[in-house]
Amino acid sequence: MLFLLLTLLASQGTPRAPREVEARFLRLPDPASCERYLQVLTEDPRLAGTPTDRRSAEYTRSRWLEAGLEADFATYEVYLPYPKSIEVKLLAPEEFKAKNVEEGWGWDKDSYAPDAVLPYNAYSPSGDVTAEVVYANYGLPEDFARLKGMGVDPAGKIAVARYGRSYRGIKARAAREAGAIGLILYSDPADDGYGKGDPYPRGPWRAATSLQRGSILDLAKGPGDPLSPGWPAIKGARRIEPAQADALPKIPTTPISHADAAPLLKNLSGPTVPEGWQGALPFAYHLGPGPARVNLKIEMDFADRPIWNTIGKILGASRPDEWVILGAHRDAWVHGAVDDGSGCAVLLEIGRCLGELLKEGWRPARTILLASWDGEEFGLLGSTEWVEERLEEVGAKAVAYVNADSAVSGRDFAASGSPSLADFAREIAKAVEDPRSRRPIHEVWAERTRVAAKEEETYRRGEEPDRGASGTEPPVGTLGSGSDYTAFLDHAGVACVDFAFTGPYGPYHSTHDSFYWMKNFGDPTFEYHAAMARVMGLAALRLADADLLPIDHAGVARAVPRYLEDIAAKAAQAAERRGEKPPELEAPLRPLREAAAALAKAAGEASTRGSQAAEKGPATVLAEVNAALLRAEREYLDRAGVPGRTWFRSLLQAPGIDAGYAPATLPGIREAAVSGEIDRVSVEAARLVARLDAAAAVLAGKPLAAGKGGRGSSPEAGRR
Amino acid sequence: MLFLLLTLLASQGTPRAPREVEARFLRLPDPASCERYLQVLTEDPRLAGTPTDRRSAEYTRSRWLEAGLEADFATYEVYLPYPKSIEVKLLAPEEFKAKNVEEGWGWDKDSYAPDAVLPYNAYSPSGDVTAEVVYANYGLPEDFARLKGMGVDPAGKIAVARYGRSYRGIKARAAREAGAIGLILYSDPADDGYGKGDPYPRGPWRAATSLQRGSILDLAKGPGDPLSPGWPAIKGARRIEPAQADALPKIPTTPISHADAAPLLKNLSGPTVPEGWQGALPFAYHLGPGPARVNLKIEMDFADRPIWNTIGKILGASRPDEWVILGAHRDAWVHGAVDDGSGCAVLLEIGRCLGELLKEGWRPARTILLASWDGEEFGLLGSTEWVEERLEEVGAKAVAYVNADSAVSGRDFAASGSPSLADFAREIAKAVEDPRSRRPIHEVWAERTRVAAKEEETYRRGEEPDRGASGTEPPVGTLGSGSDYTAFLDHAGVACVDFAFTGPYGPYHSTHDSFYWMKNFGDPTFEYHAAMARVMGLAALRLADADLLPIDHAGVARAVPRYLEDIAAKAAQAAERRGEKPPELEAPLRPLREAAAALAKAAGEASTRGSQAAEKGPATVLAEVNAALLRAEREYLDRAGVPGRTWFRSLLQAPGIDAGYAPATLPGIREAAVSGEIDRVSVEAARLVARLDAAAAVLAGKPLAAGKGGRGSSPEAGRR
Repeated sequence: MLFLLLTLLASQGTPRAPREVEARFLRLPDPASCERYLQVLTEDPRLAGTPTDRRSAEYTRSRWLEAGLEADFATYEVYLPYPKSIEVKLLAPEEFKAKNVEEGWGWDKDSYAPDAVLPYNAYSPSGDVTAEVVYANYGLPEDFARLKGMGVDPAGKIAVARYGRSYRGIKARAAREAGAIGLILYSDPADDGYGKGDPYPRGPWRAATSLQRGSILDLAKGPGDPLSPGWPAIKGARRIEPAQADALPKIPTTPISHADAAPLLKNLSGPTVPEGWQGALPFAYHLGPGPARVNLKIEMDFADRPIWNTIGKILGASRPDEWVILGAHRDAWVHGAVDDGSGCAVLLEIGRCLGELLKEGWRPARTILLASWDGEEFGLLGSTEWVEERLEEVGAKAVAYVNADSAVSGRDFAASGSPSLADFAREIAKAVEDPRSRRPIHEVWAERTRVAAKEEETYRRGEEPDRGASGTEPPVGTLGSGSDYTAFLDHAGVACVDFAFTGPYGPYHSTHDSFYWMKNFGDPTFEYHAAMARVMGLAALRLADADLLPIDHAGVARAVPRYLEDIAAKAAQAAERRGEKPPELEAPLRPLREAAAALAKAAGEASTRGSQAAEKGPATVLAEVNAALLRAEREYLDRAGVPGRTWFRSLLQAPGIDAGYAPATLPGIREAAVSGEIDRVSVEAARLVARLDAAAAVLAGKPLAAGKGGRGSSPEAGRR
Repeated sequence: MLFLLLTLLASQGTPRAPREVEARFLRLPDPASCERYLQVLTEDPRLAGTPTDRRSAEYTRSRWLEAGLEADFATYEVYLPYPKSIEVKLLAPEEFKAKNVEEGWGWDKDSYAPDAVLPYNAYSPSGDVTAEVVYANYGLPEDFARLKGMGVDPAGKIAVARYGRSYRGIKARAAREAGAIGLILYSDPADDGYGKGDPYPRGPWRAATSLQRGSILDLAKGPGDPLSPGWPAIKGARRIEPAQADALPKIPTTPISHADAAPLLKNLSGPTVPEGWQGALPFAYHLGPGPARVNLKIEMDFADRPIWNTIGKILGASRPDEWVILGAHRDAWVHGAVDDGSGCAVLLEIGRCLGELLKEGWRPARTILLASWDGEEFGLLGSTEWVEERLEEVGAKAVAYVNADSAVSGRDFAASGSPSLADFAREIAKAVEDPRSRRPIHEVWAERTRVAAKEEETYRRGEEPDRGASGTEPPVGTLGSGSDYTAFLDHAGVACVDFAFTGPYGPYHSTHDSFYWMKNFGDPTFEYHAAMARVMGLAALRLADADLLPIDHAGVARAVPRYLEDIAAKAAQAAERRGEKPPELEAPLRPLREAAAALAKAAGEASTRGSQAAEKGPATVLAEVNAALLRAEREYLDRAGVPGRTWFRSLLQAPGIDAGYAPATLPGIREAAVSGEIDRVSVEAARLVARLDAAAAVLAGKPLAAGKGGRGSSPEAGRR
């Protein structure tokens, strides 16, 4: 009590030291408050562009204003499809119509969801196709290739593929490229249903009637509004024709539940499936084609519709033009308690707690932005348009972007990030307590990850996590795509980090991702919501108030050889599949290894110079080092971008072209090496060497040659 | 035609050279003949001790007499249980009674099987128990330990465990040791049902109502009649009391189908199962206990009943007192088309073909015995009693034993054998054609086994197959137990080899293991039956007519270090589980490695001496070497046997005490090393060193010190 009083007294007077502010902040997040926020946010569906979505944007703004932040909307008009009608009918050998309704229970009002949008895959074209069915496993490019290899041609057929292992947009593209005329995606109980554990409502896994809505926009071609690729979708701005939009899928595609999928799959004949293709439905799977014959009829309503990001702001006291940005997406397929109601509740809680600090007289040195993104589910629309609208400003001002998507679905901490923020992410985890064990999150995380990472994490977070300089730290994954950091990371060259508490979670993108689910399975006490508010809030405080910015380019220097090792392995595998010897990569990549070593040296020296200046001054040196740390991050961009996908301008990583959410690190080099084009490996390596050299030069305080480098390209430069 | 004529002419005159006889023999086996034999054999069930079993023994004798062989019965009276009534009733939370009837189809008369024995586990005691249910995965000792570790105590409960991964007798013992009062075994569709492929009759896998009968006699304690352990169960011979019989299981145990198991498992609560415990039934498995509550009521009819081995014989022309023995078991749980109707049809075909050679004037140098064993399914009764009855004679006369159990269930060739016969088995595979590809079996086998061995093979055949001197030959597995070679191999010290053509095969021990199944899935053209007749028949011819016996003790010398490597790995794993460092095995095992090296040298020299004598004489040296090759094989026996299981007298291998059918190689050393008892490792190693030294001395032609070695122990010596 005395301590609190002293704290309050102190807050009225002189500014508190950063550590004191941190300690105060960590005491503020409140589980009951998080629960209230989530309950309000999940009261109605938040489908992007709908009145209830708009209402949640207003609610968010009101809470932030109430807390003493500035807050406003950033509105865009984006190309959004809503479903008018969807029918999946089995015509032969027996008749069956997919019910496409998720089971509801009286005590979970959200599960009834009469106002839930029809289950659909956003951006599927309208269409009416009838054909025999083939089963295509996960619908990956290699699955379709295998299918053909087994003598089952998907051409002219409707493919039924299960969710998992990749982003669904990749499946839609692969199905089309294999010649399928329609695609039905279903959730196999082996992947997120009873094969994993008890289905909802007995347990946290997917129920028989539950299904996964979701966009099939081809994110690997570039996220954001598909009709304004590379520029902001402001009302009245130029739009391309849908027919020109590369990212739009071309064949009718829709999701169904496993209850609806079973009759289709049970009626397949042809060869039995190969090893690894059998799911958990209670019969032996076959490949087809037929005799199951299906009519898939989809009517969509495409239109430009408004979406509303809500942006809260605390202006920095001494460095207002440096932005620390925290974000989560507010839109959801239905009520989205986990995805991403949890992240939004956390942002609201952070706003409330920072508001408390403001009332106690604190102000951050740098500006803090809280972003409640809209239209994420359709293709990262809100965040991408926002970055595209102010690309130069973001390039000039952004210190870092901190993301939380499906922020809380359990108790297992996970982090992914730019290599330059990996150590920072671990430092945050040391400073925040795990609610259940009352030990630092970092300790619990390290123990758990000594065991192999879960498959899901591997596919979302990549196979080359940062394990610290020692190689034994808990893993900070590589960022791929599938959430709102993408435009910051890959288009604007901003260091990003993404946090989550994960756990067994089946009802992704269904009506069962509800407040009741969270209350019973994900985070019954809401203590992990409060912990996530501490994690993200502390990250914001440290970034905003740091004397020396915690961006460490030694992490990038460490990442490059790690990525190259993985590339060599993948290239060798690919060569073996082609019946060739592993490509000789040592020589073409030597300059890159040398550049990484030089970058490590420059990063170390900058770090030492910065630490000394932070301690003893002079302030000018500190400011120079901080500026260099930010500018160096932009140097990893190249105006020409990743080959064939110029919107993605970072040479360090991009979404894998066939991997969906999973990252491809050093994508230019990787793709050349995997396809065995050694000359192209050298070319791509040389491009990256130039960027690493530039970053090292910036860190060493050397002036950059004019016109060199990837900074400051105009917003339109990225795409056609 | 001319060639045939010449052959026939030749056959009337002087004896043909062995290679000529072989070539002639390989042309004789006929698929249509094999099919006829199998059809007659599968006409009625062949449950050991029943009139229809007796009829099949007579049929076998008639065919061999007809072919010109001698043939007679070897009859024993053994303790055989038949079921009177079996009930599995779910009492709570809902009522359900297991149907225990396998589905039948009009077009497969065997599938109806009104005369099929009630599904049961032979040697289960009668009993009437009621308790809550726990799910125990595969029912292995480690599964029960894990269950307790998760806070679910099987004591006083009825355990439900799935088949697979081990012999069912081990499960019954493990359940009792864990305190369970009853055990229900079921066939999970993940293991041999729709999780693997189409169930019968659409495909070769186990149907929903199909179930696996089978004995739960504790074979690791010793096979054969449980009331005459170690001596022959001749009518009127001494018997022990059932209460004294170690191998008899103690808790009521019965098998059910997955159709009957589903209601029991679906009604379990308690924790969800850990990784790897979920089967393929369409719900999330739980451990219990309860609320499922079951009444298991079993009434058995135990009695001494007759069984009839049929033994065919072709007396050797020059060495009648040297026996080459071929065997397969004739009894079956129901119609047993695969298990082991196929092996019996093959033996009948071999009898017919050897009869043809006899008619053409050929006689083997050594005696050939064909053994149609009875009572195998109950616990290797017929073969064990036969060997026990003439243990000294077998020790003195047996050259080798060649076995085929479930001889044909598909097209994939597999062989297991004594290390001294591994190269011989591969030579046979080079000389016989694979029917489908028309290439040598060895080639097809080598190609297939370059891919990893199937799990089932690993568990039945052990993890340390012989890959030849090069290490790259197709694998000849290690013999464990579960078929009729056991008494020859482990009790009498005879070199054995076991052949099979395998494939997808679900209906093991059910009414669906029928002629129809074979005709549609296993071997529709019966060409693989004919091929197996060539394989086993050729093995018999080569063993019977060889100048120099193809028994190579270099294979034993090669096996010992391979076994030691596996022991070191398993001991290290076990130590790690106990939280200890890997045991220091190098020093205690050095003398054994040296003894193996000395054996290799002696084997090589004996081989050279034998080859030279076979080519240039003198005949006395050849006879000496052949005698030494046989005697050396006996030297691997030790009268004191495997620790705690003295019936098993070979120090090279025994059935694993907890592994069921799978072998434990160097069992004394292995068990000591795995339990971390280094002193005992040294003791056991010294015992084996003595045996290897003795074998080497025999091979070197040195006289054996009187009284040393394990030969000639009286039949009673083995067991209490």
